[in-house]
Amino acid sequence: MPRYRPADSFETPRFSGVRTFMRLPHVRDLDNADAAIVGAPFDTGSSFRVGARFGPEAIRSASHLLRPYNPSQDVSLFDHLSVIDYGDVFVVPGFIEESYEKIQEGLETIHRAGVVPIVLGGDHSIALPELRAAAAARGPLALAHFDAHADTWDAYFGKKHNHGTVFRRAVEEGLLKPERSIQVGMRGPLYEAGDLRASLELGFELITTDEVRETGVKETVARVRERVGEEKVYVSFDVDFVDPAFAPGTGTPEVGGFTSREAQEFLRGLAGLEVVGADVVEVYPAYDPAGVTAVLAANAAYEILTLVALYRKRNPASRGLFRW
Amino acid sequence: MPRYRPADSFETPRFSGVRTFMRLPHVRDLDNADAAIVGAPFDTGSSFRVGARFGPEAIRSASHLLRPYNPSQDVSLFDHLSVIDYGDVFVVPGFIEESYEKIQEGLETIHRAGVVPIVLGGDHSIALPELRAAAAARGPLALAHFDAHADTWDAYFGKKHNHGTVFRRAVEEGLLKPERSIQVGMRGPLYEAGDLRASLELGFELITTDEVRETGVKETVARVRERVGEEKVYVSFDVDFVDPAFAPGTGTPEVGGFTSREAQEFLRGLAGLEVVGADVVEVYPAYDPAGVTAVLAANAAYEILTLVALYRKRNPASRGLFRW
Amino acid sequence: MPRYRPADSFETPRFSGVRTFMRLPHVRDLDNADAAIVGAPFDTGSSFRVGARFGPEAIRSASHLLRPYNPSQDVSLFDHLSVIDYGDVFVVPGFIEESYEKIQEGLETIHRAGVVPIVLGGDHSIALPELRAAAAARGPLALAHFDAHADTWDAYFGKKHNHGTVFRRAVEEGLLKPERSIQVGMRGPLYEAGDLRASLELGFELITTDEVRETGVKETVARVRERVGEEKVYVSFDVDFVDPAFAPGTGTPEVGGFTSREAQEFLRGLAGLEVVGADVVEVYPAYDPAGVTAVLAANAAYEILTLVALYRKRNPASRGLFRW
Amino acid sequence: MPRYRPADSFETPRFSGVRTFMRLPHVRDLDNADAAIVGAPFDTGSSFRVGARFGPEAIRSASHLLRPYNPSQDVSLFDHLSVIDYGDVFVVPGFIEESYEKIQEGLETIHRAGVVPIVLGGDHSIALPELRAAAAARGPLALAHFDAHADTWDAYFGKKHNHGTVFRRAVEEGLLKPERSIQVGMRGPLYEAGDLRASLELGFELITTDEVRETGVKETVARVRERVGEEKVYVSFDVDFVDPAFAPGTGTPEVGGFTSREAQEFLRGLAGLEVVGADVVEVYPAYDPAGVTAVLAANAAYEILTLVALYRKRNPASRGLFRW
Amino acid sequence: MPRYRPADSFETPRFSGVRTFMRLPHVRDLDNADAAIVGAPFDTGSSFRVGARFGPEAIRSASHLLRPYNPSQDVSLFDHLSVIDYGDVFVVPGFIEESYEKIQEGLETIHRAGVVPIVLGGDHSIALPELRAAAAARGPLALAHFDAHADTWDAYFGKKHNHGTVFRRAVEEGLLKPERSIQVGMRGPLYEAGDLRASLELGFELITTDEVRETGVKETVARVRERVGEEKVYVSFDVDFVDPAFAPGTGTPEVGGFTSREAQEFLRGLAGLEVVGADVVEVYPAYDPAGVTAVLAANAAYEILTLVALYRKRNPASRGLFRW
Amino acid sequence: MPRYRPADSFETPRFSGVRTFMRLPHVRDLDNADAAIVGAPFDTGSSFRVGARFGPEAIRSASHLLRPYNPSQDVSLFDHLSVIDYGDVFVVPGFIEESYEKIQEGLETIHRAGVVPIVLGGDHSIALPELRAAAAARGPLALAHFDAHADTWDAYFGKKHNHGTVFRRAVEEGLLKPERSIQVGMRGPLYEAGDLRASLELGFELITTDEVRETGVKETVARVRERVGEEKVYVSFDVDFVDPAFAPGTGTPEVGGFTSREAQEFLRGLAGLEVVGADVVEVYPAYDPAGVTAVLAANAAYEILTLVALYRKRNPASRGLFRW
Repeated sequence: MPRYRPADSFETPRFSGVRTFMRLPHVRDLDNADAAIVGAPFDTGSSFRVGARFGPEAIRSASHLLRPYNPSQDVSLFDHLSVIDYGDVFVVPGFIEESYEKIQEGLETIHRAGVVPIVLGGDHSIALPELRAAAAARGPLALAHFDAHADTWDAYFGKKHNHGTVFRRAVEEGLLKPERSIQVGMRGPLYEAGDLRASLELGFELITTDEVRETGVKETVARVRERVGEEKVYVSFDVDFVDPAFAPGTGTPEVGGFTSREAQEFLRGLAGLEVVGADVVEVYPAYDPAGVTAVLAANAAYEILTLVALYRKRNPASRGLFRW
Repeated sequence: MPRYRPADSFETPRFSGVRTFMRLPHVRDLDNADAAIVGAPFDTGSSFRVGARFGPEAIRSASHLLRPYNPSQDVSLFDHLSVIDYGDVFVVPGFIEESYEKIQEGLETIHRAGVVPIVLGGDHSIALPELRAAAAARGPLALAHFDAHADTWDAYFGKKHNHGTVFRRAVEEGLLKPERSIQVGMRGPLYEAGDLRASLELGFELITTDEVRETGVKETVARVRERVGEEKVYVSFDVDFVDPAFAPGTGTPEVGGFTSREAQEFLRGLAGLEVVGADVVEVYPAYDPAGVTAVLAANAAYEILTLVALYRKRNPASRGLFRW
Repeated sequence: MPRYRPADSFETPRFSGVRTFMRLPHVRDLDNADAAIVGAPFDTGSSFRVGARFGPEAIRSASHLLRPYNPSQDVSLFDHLSVIDYGDVFVVPGFIEESYEKIQEGLETIHRAGVVPIVLGGDHSIALPELRAAAAARGPLALAHFDAHADTWDAYFGKKHNHGTVFRRAVEEGLLKPERSIQVGMRGPLYEAGDLRASLELGFELITTDEVRETGVKETVARVRERVGEEKVYVSFDVDFVDPAFAPGTGTPEVGGFTSREAQEFLRGLAGLEVVGADVVEVYPAYDPAGVTAVLAANAAYEILTLVALYRKRNPASRGLFRW
Repeated sequence: MPRYRPADSFETPRFSGVRTFMRLPHVRDLDNADAAIVGAPFDTGSSFRVGARFGPEAIRSASHLLRPYNPSQDVSLFDHLSVIDYGDVFVVPGFIEESYEKIQEGLETIHRAGVVPIVLGGDHSIALPELRAAAAARGPLALAHFDAHADTWDAYFGKKHNHGTVFRRAVEEGLLKPERSIQVGMRGPLYEAGDLRASLELGFELITTDEVRETGVKETVARVRERVGEEKVYVSFDVDFVDPAFAPGTGTPEVGGFTSREAQEFLRGLAGLEVVGADVVEVYPAYDPAGVTAVLAANAAYEILTLVALYRKRNPASRGLFRW
Repeated sequence: MPRYRPADSFETPRFSGVRTFMRLPHVRDLDNADAAIVGAPFDTGSSFRVGARFGPEAIRSASHLLRPYNPSQDVSLFDHLSVIDYGDVFVVPGFIEESYEKIQEGLETIHRAGVVPIVLGGDHSIALPELRAAAAARGPLALAHFDAHADTWDAYFGKKHNHGTVFRRAVEEGLLKPERSIQVGMRGPLYEAGDLRASLELGFELITTDEVRETGVKETVARVRERVGEEKVYVSFDVDFVDPAFAPGTGTPEVGGFTSREAQEFLRGLAGLEVVGADVVEVYPAYDPAGVTAVLAANAAYEILTLVALYRKRNPASRGLFRW
Repeated sequence: MPRYRPADSFETPRFSGVRTFMRLPHVRDLDNADAAIVGAPFDTGSSFRVGARFGPEAIRSASHLLRPYNPSQDVSLFDHLSVIDYGDVFVVPGFIEESYEKIQEGLETIHRAGVVPIVLGGDHSIALPELRAAAAARGPLALAHFDAHADTWDAYFGKKHNHGTVFRRAVEEGLLKPERSIQVGMRGPLYEAGDLRASLELGFELITTDEVRETGVKETVARVRERVGEEKVYVSFDVDFVDPAFAPGTGTPEVGGFTSREAQEFLRGLAGLEVVGADVVEVYPAYDPAGVTAVLAANAAYEILTLVALYRKRNPASRGLFRW
């Protein structure tokens, strides 16, 4: 039974080879994988800038900098996980509904195999088919959502589906357990005073960046952990959670954001939670001339993968949920 | 009765003021305009790169370099034309059909006022609503199409509408007179041997870049003029007609293209034709770090505007078609 | 009586239309405006890099990301203010004195109409004609100045006017009330030990970045508020106040600066002050490949506009000062 | 027996999937391949700029724009060839000799399987191990070398191996048939008057850009064909053969070069020759902000692959040389 | 008596050392120099973009690619010339008149020493003090001017001195022999039909790009040579003479320009003329992300230096004009 | 006896002149210098990105922004130090051993003259010859090392010398006093759990970024000072110590790093230590589109130079160690 791990960077240089996430094997062997990196190169849901379809390519390229041992969490990822780069799910550029179907279909296969998908976006509109796939396989989930925007607007230009409406849709469709879900980091100008209230009305907890600044990152992390509790959780990380200085290559940058260090602290603070799916979205390489956004996104995916490894390490039997 | 012309650049510097095309007034007074610059910031029809929604902004910005007298054609544009920057037509990002309706609606108003719209794209998929609007107001037109691609594929991913299928659709809908229409500059790898035959089957004449290289630019221009004859003609200029060295900021660059000088020669060679509408499309500013693509596109729009001025100069009564 | 507010971004996408600040109407109707965004595309006063003449264009473009409700201050700006994009004042590139005259003339008209101008620079040398205009209309003002540099040198190359001498000149000309004025954020290498003492000798209070780091942002904000008191105040925000990571596109970057979040805290902390004029200066788009500097500057102007809205909200009669 | 061809771009978009050349399968199944794309991410041999180690990544990414039918040569490549993306050969960054061994070893395996390798560089120093591998498997070859530089200097800093000395070494080692070899396109300042004479002394024919300009591209192509004759030929294409406008992202750019169109004409003119190996080198992505160099290089590799297809089409039995 | 030549690039790599032109010694020893590279980092005369003050730095950096033997002219430059990098002349940014004085003063010293200055701009406004210095030392000169613009406008914004008026001023001041002077390459939109007639009225010959395209480069070169005849000639090369594809980093780019190869042909065609001074101007590094403009400019300066070397080679006594 | 100090920026603008560090004289007069800026443009030791050979050029260019008085340390540098820009030491690109010899040789001369070299890298592999030179002249030193990576791996690809192994080598060769040496700032994924233990085994103290975040910057600085004590110390500053937002242009960026302000605090905190040599390394200009990395590196060198000035100010006799 093969176990999948990255190529050895002491043997072949990290800049060599076809670009897969962390130099992992690009296979679709779900039977022998615990987690799968999956690209979802879709950006038809973007309301301002576009180009997140090239996000998976950029994140994969930047991920070659990553190494297998995470010292902040003291875990060697591939001692506990077999991980593959599954490639990309199908999308139909220019067509949201059709793309949603194909993305859901692709991810559902992965979830049903008991494999944790870590999706590289793509704009945030892909979260809806992601959650549809997850819920279809595992039932409604908790959500830990890190973002400058709540993405719970109702519609843009009379249209229900885009990267600003996705979590409202997810609740309406019963894909989430709002009472176990939380949104963190909202900031920046809004259309109306009530914009963020929408999240509360949907049942989410919501912590703005202003609130985090008052209560501190550690306390906020504790609130996230408390909210999620023992539930299976989906982690959605929009790179505009951090400041444009740290992630300029995104679709709707908002100044006043977190540092990359703080983003790490948020994600690392989730250690122990049972992450069953995740995404890292809103990377727009054409707006990332120095490449720092892609590096940040690769690290975010890496920290989430670490969470999966930690959970497996502590709950070795957990993987059997679907397959054993 | 006001006449619209650019701000005087000996009085206020060209880098000042809100960016309109050539520093023209941004008004919607169709009654007193002969031609109108119109942005169509739509890029949901793109099959590879995206971002042409920022094309109108970039072209307007670059157009501040233009001056009112065209020495190669010996005409001072605004002695013969009153021109406005109409702003942008409405689009619904992520939704092709709805955008087509809105673009058509916006442009039809302009055509029906007897004003010649020069549309700044946007990806090439906007040519369909452009031609629908033009045909609705003026009946089927001749087409002079400069592009590396014929854009007559039938479908992508089972979808009929995108920037690669638009001229097939236009013929199917009866918007063009194929026997008076011509496509110039096709080059680059194709999916199949028959790809370009599709244009011939639709009734177009088609001259590849390879053929132009053999027969020369002047002879090719003569063939375009002969093909169009006395018909009202729509000019569609895709910036990938020129080589990526001259227009890197485009969606599907093809090496081996024309120089900017040759592009000027093609457009200048159309002097005397009755241009009733035009577009300059496929400018992707995020891929244009040195800004040369936007400068080229602004110049292409300028040469087309010159064609309108020349026709008016020689046919002063022509404007009355709809309004006098 | 028209009220001016931005275009509705649920109706037309934010990336569409001619670029005005926040998609506001570009009109010169001072009678019906409370505040006016004004570009001052002047950069002949720069001592190192140049190119701030394109600052207004870049800030206007980035401002399309802004939305009308400011949650951190709990105010919907356009419920309290009618705002226009006035366009640019005249400048004569290459000629400082003449430009000063024209800038002053342009801004004085605005001040005399009782409208608050928020000026988009341009290099910081424009602060002198700004203050001349403000003082001519309203008398000497308090100054709240955020910057890495005090800009109180006496001369460069024997020349009195440039972006490093402007506040010394302003005091010499009696345009400010130094005892109500304060400079915050100075840092970076200096020419001589006495460089910052010059500000004190002019009567200003000055708080270096080093001091802010010791006493904290909140305490510093309190000192600014205390210093200004009930005076009418001019806010001058140089983007090099923040660190080059957050604002690389500036003329004389100094490392060790504030974050974008801290900049927001400084500006938000001025709530309640009577801002009668302001500028956001030293944006050099050619050095801003990821566009983050323009986004930051647009947000700074937005926070200042919020201050004006807050003051009007709390003092509805205040607008009548000049016109009612 | 599997045949390898690119993914179908009407089914899945060209921007999706792990980046292999033209979306070909990334396998090492030499038994069922006619040609193999191979990366050689080595740049320790560079004398000025560096960074060609990222060349294979950039070329693979750009190659997603290519389509399978080459209209200029009227051939559908994958009707005649089974092609794989073999991935990269091993290199040891910082160590030329060791890298040469590993590169040779990797390529020799391919040659010995009767598969034609098309190598994506890397700096031009990799041509030596390429030719060692080719000669080991097939004996001395003819060379068709397109480049601004002859790369026949003897040494730099007393060192024999780098990207400027490689073809002198190849002759010294007996890897080439100089009397069947030709260098085209040399231009730009030299160290000494005798620099290009070195090529003649080694037995090569050499045609400078100045000479091509006098005699024309067609005549030059004819000379290349005549020189090579019926020999098995290695094609080495340095992207600095074209002008920096068309290929800025290279190590030692020389102005006054060819256009991309002319480069295509040179390569297309070789139709009928028996190409048994090739490289496209000197792509430095960090100096290629608009990506045009990578697009050009991908097209050059595509034209060379076309040559292999044409030869196979006309000589169906040729493949059996080693394996049948 | 020292002779100055570049550092040996076989001994120390070309990327090492403080950046001087071609790695020449940075000294001010005019007694032992035949030619001097001089920076004039002035850009206050720019009417649109700015930033040419960083032109000398960029050109010096790019010039490290140049080698001492020019094969197209068959001359090893430093066998005939001792050349220094003189550094920069003084300028006062923001002040045209004062800068003119300082630039003239700096260059006059060089001319009076019998040394040929090759000036690296800076915007084109520096040509006036250059010509003042040259005429003061050597009397009125012939001019060979390569540019997209004639730069003979009378004034901008009521101001006489900037980069668009300089050659009119030079004639008015008697610095040139118009009957021996010629302008080549004018193209692009103009303000009025009579704009180029101004040059003829000043006594210049003027050949537009349109005319060159009709008569050919060779014939045009012949006309330049004939016009200049035996006169001492000043060569002024504005990089916007070439197309923006080859020189994007310039102040007022005009599409439809020459290739870098053609630029070389123009300059090489002047072999035999007595060049006593020259400039290469309008390089704006902030608009030159791929660096090709600086490489082109360095090559232009190199070709001009070659002209000086050729003249000295053929007229060994010529240097004595002033000093022997 | 000459004293060397920067050109006066009130007399000539900072953007003028050949680029030396801080506009210092470029001479090799060690007899009259206290400190020397030295470039080491070597990058053959890089394991991922390359291009640090252009680091010295970029840092010198950015350093023109620096001014002579450091207000945070209250010292006017050149009142206490005579400083030269020594130019670059020799390197042999592509050859590590030979380059090490030449770098050592060049620096040893400087150390033996009693001059403090501040080396501008180059990749971090140059630290080995730096320390060899320092130890040869002054005996084993303490080390204060700021970096995201400990650089104490044993080998890459079986090779002992590169930018990741250098401090292990230095200890093995007895160049350092490990018990007086300390490494600060390590973070980011590692190959194995034991990677950082290697430093402890070598005798170093090591403080990770995680630890700094817990104990604070001030406390960490105190630990560095305590560790070094009265020893002569070598300061090695890798720009990846700071976050990629502040220093994107580096070879192996790690998110979660320090701010530029914190970097200044670390370096300023060393006031009083006897710095006898230093480097600032891993600046890769091709990955630094906004130039912020070079500005940061120039400031780091400036802070280190300040440390030397402070020590001299307090210990005026100290300079005599070797020469008096």
